[in-house]
Amino acid sequence: MENPQTTETTVQIITPEEFLEQWLGHRSLTKKLIEIFPEDQLFNHSIGGMRPFADMAKEVLGIAGIGIKALITGDWKFTPELDYNPQRSIVKTKAELLILWDKVTEDILAYWPRITPQQFRETVVAFGMYEAPIYNMILYWINNEIHHRGQGYVYLRSLGIEPPAFWDRG
Amino acid sequence: MENPQTTETTVQIITPEEFLEQWLGHRSLTKKLIEIFPEDQLFNHSIGGMRPFADMAKEVLGIAGIGIKALITGDWKFTPELDYNPQRSIVKTKAELLILWDKVTEDILAYWPRITPQQFRETVVAFGMYEAPIYNMILYWINNEIHHRGQGYVYLRSLGIEPPAFWDRG
Repeated sequence: MENPQTTETTVQIITPEEFLEQWLGHRSLTKKLIEIFPEDQLFNHSIGGMRPFADMAKEVLGIAGIGIKALITGDWKFTPELDYNPQRSIVKTKAELLILWDKVTEDILAYWPRITPQQFRETVVAFGMYEAPIYNMILYWINNEIHHRGQGYVYLRSLGIEPPAFWDRG
Repeated sequence: MENPQTTETTVQIITPEEFLEQWLGHRSLTKKLIEIFPEDQLFNHSIGGMRPFADMAKEVLGIAGIGIKALITGDWKFTPELDYNPQRSIVKTKAELLILWDKVTEDILAYWPRITPQQFRETVVAFGMYEAPIYNMILYWINNEIHHRGQGYVYLRSLGIEPPAFWDRG
């Protein structure tokens, strides 16, 4: 075979470190969006009956924070801080949200190296219901973040606020 | 080292086929969004001065269509069909956009197997200005698609139209 595109080739198309860098870059940009939202609109602005951006950001935060640890520990239960259910969430201010954002970034940095290359291929059942290989699960989390962040861009534009550039992940 | 997270490990965390599956899944969902937009709103609805969704979809289409071939041929020049500049674009209807969408999907299927695992690591200068390793470039294209598609979700909701589910990539 000319292109042995199997898991047994000696070339990884993306390394775990590069995969992490993708996630961290997206989290950096999403954090900028949270920061730029005026406090009131972060928690209240809505278009077409959709959730305020704070609720979307809490979802992204909660999945990342619970998920990264659970990949190692197997414990998918939400903590009060990361429970993004609007009825139960205890996060009420932008400052609280940003502190938790940084805390979860630290958790990602701490737990990521404990995922072995082999583990990315293993199937997990996330949050008791979503079954997928770990590489795919993490991509889904990142994609969900990009999806909701894109929605945050529209919210900001509708408020007359210029969002950060899409490529600005530094 | 316990976790030899280098390109020389024998385990790929994601294979080229799985990477392709991600892209195709996202393109399938984006196509559903184009289909569900009423023709007029696809080309004219806007929030906060942003582009209509047709212009965003044309961008995603053009980058994918030119990009996938250029990774093999090195030719990054836009064709009239895929030039998404609003002044120059010749795509004027939803039907035309959808035909081109499927044509580019066929091109992706045809050209993807020609990218060797080693090539994903190589740096290219896309469209004469964006320099990155190919794996990163393709991720950027996919992420850009997710980003704009998320914006399309808000457009649809603001029109009172229920978008397809985010996880529906079939």
